[in-house]
Amino acid sequence: MRAALMYAAGDVRVGHVADPILKEPTDALVRITTACVCGSDLHPYRSMAGSDAPVRMGHEFIGVVEATGSHVRTVKKGDLAVAPFAYSDGTCEHCRAGLQTSCVHGGFWARNGIDGGQGEAARVPLADGTLVQLPVTADDALIPSLLTLSDMLGTGHHAAVRGGVRQGSTVTVVGDGAVGLLAVLAAKRLGAEQIVLTGRHTARTDLGRAFGATDVVAERGAEGIEKVRELIGGGSPIVLEAVGHRPAYEQAYGVVRPSGTISRVGAPQYEEAPIGFGSLFGHDVTLTGGPAPARAYIDELLPDIVEGRIAPGRVFDRTVDLDEVPDGYRARDTREALKVLVRPGTGKL
Amino acid sequence: MRAALMYAAGDVRVGHVADPILKEPTDALVRITTACVCGSDLHPYRSMAGSDAPVRMGHEFIGVVEATGSHVRTVKKGDLAVAPFAYSDGTCEHCRAGLQTSCVHGGFWARNGIDGGQGEAARVPLADGTLVQLPVTADDALIPSLLTLSDMLGTGHHAAVRGGVRQGSTVTVVGDGAVGLLAVLAAKRLGAEQIVLTGRHTARTDLGRAFGATDVVAERGAEGIEKVRELIGGGSPIVLEAVGHRPAYEQAYGVVRPSGTISRVGAPQYEEAPIGFGSLFGHDVTLTGGPAPARAYIDELLPDIVEGRIAPGRVFDRTVDLDEVPDGYRARDTREALKVLVRPGTGKL
Repeated sequence: MRAALMYAAGDVRVGHVADPILKEPTDALVRITTACVCGSDLHPYRSMAGSDAPVRMGHEFIGVVEATGSHVRTVKKGDLAVAPFAYSDGTCEHCRAGLQTSCVHGGFWARNGIDGGQGEAARVPLADGTLVQLPVTADDALIPSLLTLSDMLGTGHHAAVRGGVRQGSTVTVVGDGAVGLLAVLAAKRLGAEQIVLTGRHTARTDLGRAFGATDVVAERGAEGIEKVRELIGGGSPIVLEAVGHRPAYEQAYGVVRPSGTISRVGAPQYEEAPIGFGSLFGHDVTLTGGPAPARAYIDELLPDIVEGRIAPGRVFDRTVDLDEVPDGYRARDTREALKVLVRPGTGKL
Repeated sequence: MRAALMYAAGDVRVGHVADPILKEPTDALVRITTACVCGSDLHPYRSMAGSDAPVRMGHEFIGVVEATGSHVRTVKKGDLAVAPFAYSDGTCEHCRAGLQTSCVHGGFWARNGIDGGQGEAARVPLADGTLVQLPVTADDALIPSLLTLSDMLGTGHHAAVRGGVRQGSTVTVVGDGAVGLLAVLAAKRLGAEQIVLTGRHTARTDLGRAFGATDVVAERGAEGIEKVRELIGGGSPIVLEAVGHRPAYEQAYGVVRPSGTISRVGAPQYEEAPIGFGSLFGHDVTLTGGPAPARAYIDELLPDIVEGRIAPGRVFDRTVDLDEVPDGYRARDTREALKVLVRPGTGKL
C-alpha cells in the first residue's frame, strides 16, 4: 500500500510500504478514509536528521474495518471507526483509571513497526480497547469534527480537565494552533467565563473567539505576560499550554496566578525547564498535563458532535489527498494552513 | 539585643543588633521564648559566600507580646503567640484564598531589614494577620510541638494537602528530615494507609515509623526507586518531596505512578530540572507544592496538639540557648541532631 514517509526535516514523500495484515487475534485491519497532519508532526518536519530509514507518519485516523482477529468483539467488518492517537488494551490498571496513554500493552502509531495514520490502511493492535465505532458514514459532513476525537479535541479537553476548568472559571490558553483553539472550545464547554487566548494569527484567533475566547492577546514575551495580567488582575488561575515549546511554558508561568495551575498538553520539545522558587515553587503553582487519554474522552465528547452542540472540525482549513500530503506539511509549516485533512482516497488493502 | 548572624558558610556567630521598635501601627514587638534551626537554614550554612554584611537567621518562633501598634487587635501585651515563617496581612486576595506566603504585603523573616527568629526579640509586621495566640504558657511541655506550627508541621501538612492525601491513600515521602517526618505524620493524620518513607538514618526513620510510616526504604538512586516500586506496584500515586535537592526530585519522578502527583515542600536548591516527556509529561504526572501557608493551617492543627492527638515536637532532639546557636548549626550540619530547639533565655527588649 501507499503511505507518507518522512526522510528528513522538510522531506516528506509518499511511497510504497508493506500491506498491513492481521498478526494477532486482537488486531483489526482498517482502510483509512480520513486522517490529518498534526501540529506535533511539524516537530520532526523541522528537526529530523536525514537517515537511510524513513519513518511512517500520522497518528489520527478514521477508517472502515476490513477484517478483525478472532478475539475482536467490539467492531466488525464494515464498521466506520475512529482511532485515538494511542492504542491501548482497555483493561490494564492504567486504562481502567482512564489513562490509556500509559497502557502497559499500548503504544503510539507510526513507531516500532506500527502503521501510521497518513496511509491507505493500518493494522490496529488491541482493536477492542482502541477503536470506537462511529454512527455515521465515511462521507458524512461530521467527519472532520469526529476526526478531532482522535487527538486534538481530546487533547484540548484534557488540558481543560487537568487544569480544573469548571463553571465560572477564568482561563488563559497559550497557543492558537488547533489544540489551543480546541482547548478554548473545551474550556467554554466546561463553563469557563473568561477565556484569554494568546496568539498572533488573526484568522486563528477569530476562530478562537467563535469557540468562546473572550479576549485575545497578540503580544509575546514580557509584553504578552503583562497584557494577560492586565486582563486578569492577579494572574490567571488556570493556564492551558497548547504549544510545547519552551517560550510557551515560560509564558505560562509568567501569567499564572499564585496557587494556580498550568496544564500542558503541547508535547514538550525540551526536557529541562525552570520549576524552582522563581517559576513554579515560590507561588505554589501546580504543573499538570501530559498526552491526553483521547480514548477515555470519546464517550463524553462524541454526542456533543453528533448532536451539533460543538463543531471542532472548523479547525480544518485545507483538504488534501494522499499524494498531496507533502504539500500539506509545507502548508502547515508556513502557516498557510491551520490544520490539514487527509483523504487517502480509495485505498486498497 | 543579641541575635544569630551568619557571616559565611559554616560561620554563625551571636552578636549585637539594633533593638526592634514599633515602626508601623500594625506592628507588634515580641520577646522570643522559643525558636529553632531549620533544615532550610542549612542551605546557606553550606553555601553562603563570605561577605562584610552578615545576615540575620531564623524564621520560626514563639514569644511573648511586649507591645503592640495602635491598629493591632488580635494580640495584646502579655500574650504568648506563634509566628508562621511568613508574615502576612490576612486580608489581601491571596491571604483570603489561604495562600499567605503570596501575601501582597507580606514577606519572610530575616530578610530586607526584618528581624529573624534566632534572636532575643523581633518586630512582627502585620501582627493581626501573622501572630496566633497560644493557649499555654511559655514553659509548657507542649511548646516544642506548638513551635512546629511555625513551619515544619504546616509544611508537612501542606505537602499532604497539595498531594491530595485522603482516607486510604498510598504515599511515598522522600526525605527523613523533620519536614519529611512531619509529612508522614500529616499523611497519617489525613488517613493514608500505606506510607513509604525513604531515608537512611535509623533514628529518624524509627521516628517516622512512630509517626505512621508503614515501610522504610534506605536505598538511594535507581536502587531506591526500584525498592519503592516493588513495595507499591505500578508506582506511588502520591509522592511528598521534603528535601529540596535535585536528587530528591529525581527520586520523586522515578517512583511516581502514571497520573500521580508529586508535592514538593523542600525549598528547591535548583531552578531548572526535568519536566519533559521523560520525567513528568509522558505519564501525565502532576507537580505541585510550594512554601506552605503555615498561617492558614494553624487553626486546624493547633487543637490536635493541645488535645494530645499528635506530638510533632518529637522531632526536636537537642535544645540550645542563644549562645549555643552556632553549635546547633554544627550539630544539624553533621546530622548529630535532627532538629534543634533554641531557647533565647531571658532576653530583654
